[in-house]
Amino acid sequence: MASSSFFLWLLLFAVALAAVESIPVFVPGAYKSSLLKKQVKSAKPEIPYEAHYFPQVLDHFTFRPRSYKIFYQKYLMNSQYWHEGAPIFVYTGNEGDIEWFAANTGFMLDIAPKFRALLVFIEHRFYGESLPFHKKDLNSAKTLGYLSSQQALADYAVLIRSLKRNLSSEASPVVVFGGSYGGMLAAWFRLKYPHVAIGALASSAPILQFDDITPWSSFYDAVSQDFKEASLNCYEVIKGAWTELDAFGKRKDGLEKLSKMFRACKKLSSVDYARNWLWSAFTYTAMVNYPMEANFMKHLPAYPVEEMCKIIDGHSPRATKLSRAVAAASLYYNYSKTEKCFKLEDEDNDHGLQGWNWQACTEMVMPMTCSNGSMFPPSPYSYKEFADDCSRQFGVWPREHWITTEFGGMRINLVLKRFGSNIIFSNGMQDPWSRGGVLKNISSSIVALVTEKGAHHVDFRSATNKDPEWLIDQRRQEVEIIQKWLQEYYADSKQD
Amino acid sequence: MASSSFFLWLLLFAVALAAVESIPVFVPGAYKSSLLKKQVKSAKPEIPYEAHYFPQVLDHFTFRPRSYKIFYQKYLMNSQYWHEGAPIFVYTGNEGDIEWFAANTGFMLDIAPKFRALLVFIEHRFYGESLPFHKKDLNSAKTLGYLSSQQALADYAVLIRSLKRNLSSEASPVVVFGGSYGGMLAAWFRLKYPHVAIGALASSAPILQFDDITPWSSFYDAVSQDFKEASLNCYEVIKGAWTELDAFGKRKDGLEKLSKMFRACKKLSSVDYARNWLWSAFTYTAMVNYPMEANFMKHLPAYPVEEMCKIIDGHSPRATKLSRAVAAASLYYNYSKTEKCFKLEDEDNDHGLQGWNWQACTEMVMPMTCSNGSMFPPSPYSYKEFADDCSRQFGVWPREHWITTEFGGMRINLVLKRFGSNIIFSNGMQDPWSRGGVLKNISSSIVALVTEKGAHHVDFRSATNKDPEWLIDQRRQEVEIIQKWLQEYYADSKQD
Repeated sequence: MASSSFFLWLLLFAVALAAVESIPVFVPGAYKSSLLKKQVKSAKPEIPYEAHYFPQVLDHFTFRPRSYKIFYQKYLMNSQYWHEGAPIFVYTGNEGDIEWFAANTGFMLDIAPKFRALLVFIEHRFYGESLPFHKKDLNSAKTLGYLSSQQALADYAVLIRSLKRNLSSEASPVVVFGGSYGGMLAAWFRLKYPHVAIGALASSAPILQFDDITPWSSFYDAVSQDFKEASLNCYEVIKGAWTELDAFGKRKDGLEKLSKMFRACKKLSSVDYARNWLWSAFTYTAMVNYPMEANFMKHLPAYPVEEMCKIIDGHSPRATKLSRAVAAASLYYNYSKTEKCFKLEDEDNDHGLQGWNWQACTEMVMPMTCSNGSMFPPSPYSYKEFADDCSRQFGVWPREHWITTEFGGMRINLVLKRFGSNIIFSNGMQDPWSRGGVLKNISSSIVALVTEKGAHHVDFRSATNKDPEWLIDQRRQEVEIIQKWLQEYYADSKQD
Repeated sequence: MASSSFFLWLLLFAVALAAVESIPVFVPGAYKSSLLKKQVKSAKPEIPYEAHYFPQVLDHFTFRPRSYKIFYQKYLMNSQYWHEGAPIFVYTGNEGDIEWFAANTGFMLDIAPKFRALLVFIEHRFYGESLPFHKKDLNSAKTLGYLSSQQALADYAVLIRSLKRNLSSEASPVVVFGGSYGGMLAAWFRLKYPHVAIGALASSAPILQFDDITPWSSFYDAVSQDFKEASLNCYEVIKGAWTELDAFGKRKDGLEKLSKMFRACKKLSSVDYARNWLWSAFTYTAMVNYPMEANFMKHLPAYPVEEMCKIIDGHSPRATKLSRAVAAASLYYNYSKTEKCFKLEDEDNDHGLQGWNWQACTEMVMPMTCSNGSMFPPSPYSYKEFADDCSRQFGVWPREHWITTEFGGMRINLVLKRFGSNIIFSNGMQDPWSRGGVLKNISSSIVALVTEKGAHHVDFRSATNKDPEWLIDQRRQEVEIIQKWLQEYYADSKQD
């Protein structure tokens, strides 16, 4: 089943990073939302969950008349394995329709019988169907202002409490799960609401990607490393392709030539579209450099980075670097060989994109640059430029240091070591987001599970009979740790 | 130095509990704000602190255009003992002018030299000078809506971070201190911002006074116990006085008689004023049943409850119970013998009161009743009535379960035991608020320091040469524990 849910993350982030201007603009990994949305709509999954709607309060942290406005927050439940008092596994939804996350987190369904767990997937406010305002009104800071991670965490706390009460299962231990931004939410939920969740499994959660905790160039350096590891020549070809691309931009017939080379469905109006098209292909492919054929955002073969590099290395060295890069990128867009041409300028915009765009422009400020050593054109980061653009688009400024003030920054490891507990941070080193993740054990109960060959939250996928040993082992460890948390919880409860 | 800062707490709470109607209304402990304000104004203390004003954001948790409004938050600093890198002791201000809290927390000044600590007292938003809106606009939920404990905690986090950066002392450990509501904030700050504060000393912080964690009658049962312990007869006289009082209410000349008996400056317009006058005297006296003469809200002798009971027991048994209760209560209002008559109906209202009243009507919902065994007339608690009254006054509803959802409820001990650390809860059992406090050690690092003879955060007062041994010992333990936190912090930092 094709889905693109977790990809929203990078995609939307990248657009926001791109200074939230209207396209065309040169952006690391910038991409158009329409493609995603179309995919999502066409790929409505069949999943064994019942949808419910919870009356949620608009603003938990102020008490203005407006704050009391109720909206209906969607959540999915599966209670087929559950019995009263058994654990509740909650997925802390991220930036998109909760059904996609449920469909792409088969891991929870796989392990539910073992724990007799109730499964609950809660949709993040302002995404999917959980819109506090009418879609047409989601275009200004007056409405979008209520979209923030802290409000989302409070939503989860309120909903979980109410749910437990309604189920007469107030003593049921809750474990939260999340991937990508949802993983950040799961980890933060455990930090802020330890009285609600006894532990968190945060997969591919770049909670250290803020401020100056993680080097700003590390994300694209990691993408580059994936390609370099596959083939040094491949890395060099891609690295060299960008200047060739720029040269076309300066030629009179450049756009025409490019349109042909890129097999664009209609003539390109800017080199930027071509650049973004390549950029996205390489970046997303690094993220999903899975060890098995998969169909997330795109249908791709196992180890797609290697496959791309095989294409590049297989071409004649006399072919231009750009043409070889395009051939490789085409694997990403057309592995299934169903596309006759590529819609490089597909620009439909909707509030799915707007949502993350908004979050990036307010709280989720993650500085990123491309270093000289990366395979991308070097690009700096300027908070001021970013902020100016956000201000132009939304009329508000990003709060540069807010996330690290609210959730911890530079010394977070030290703090977690002594004062936190019961979090698993799982990361795969193929995934460039891993560089902003927690990659070392912090304490006996804040554990990093790192796989060299893993990519973006591959552990959350349903088990298949093609899973490699390291993935089976990673999931086994996750299950064992969660079991331990539950045992401790029940032991404590007895003593109490 | 006379001050009443910490008393605001009960006082304002009581008024709020009283269903926030305009007086007269029968309210446990209800009291008039004017008295407090007048005292405070006349008692502006001389304190060794410099005032500063920090540009603070109106709403940390939403990003509406309005949220970005800046107000100036007052804070006090004393750096005379401090050197770079040494600890920072922060008082998390509660519901009033920060200078009163600074003046009444001499303990921090006493211990600063030993730690070479920087002292910082931060004023709570919407109190004192830290008003985000003009006073005249502080009468509706549209402005008061931004007054909440979570916003206050975020204010503290943002201010501390900025301060440390400005002082180039980002590695300085921060310990937070607070008494009463400020103590709740200190404990909650440690729970929510462990990356900002390495520990909290929460004195007389009734964090368990919410929902149904603590029996609703415990507060007034504790007041009654103070009196019963001093003298059973005393307790019985007070317990019997209320029916006598009510009987006057039914008599034609009742108010005239009462006015005389109570030495009212002007004739009473309702029995309620007399009831509140007595009620407040007994309740506040129990709270400040200190082992030394003190001058907080009122000038009182050492062990004022015993003194009150001596008055009652010393009267002829032929005198009415009510007249004896009035004589005892007069000690509270007139120990200094300066009052010729009592202003029982002094009703000035201002936004000092409004502030807590608002908090009680939105988030700080603390149910209280008077049991049959208490020395007060039995009174029930009805959330609905309370909520209706709040709604009438402010147009918004109290969020009955919000505090326990956000900060932990019934199973908080269990949670703190395994997942919290570095909090001292100090309580004196004479203080009725102690019943909503943490009275038992939760773990090796979440410690309860309970003194049988202590009253409302007596440990925070400046040391005097009349302090009893148990008080000296309590403060010594507090210092030792804080030293331990600091040592651990420095040891961890070195390893890092």
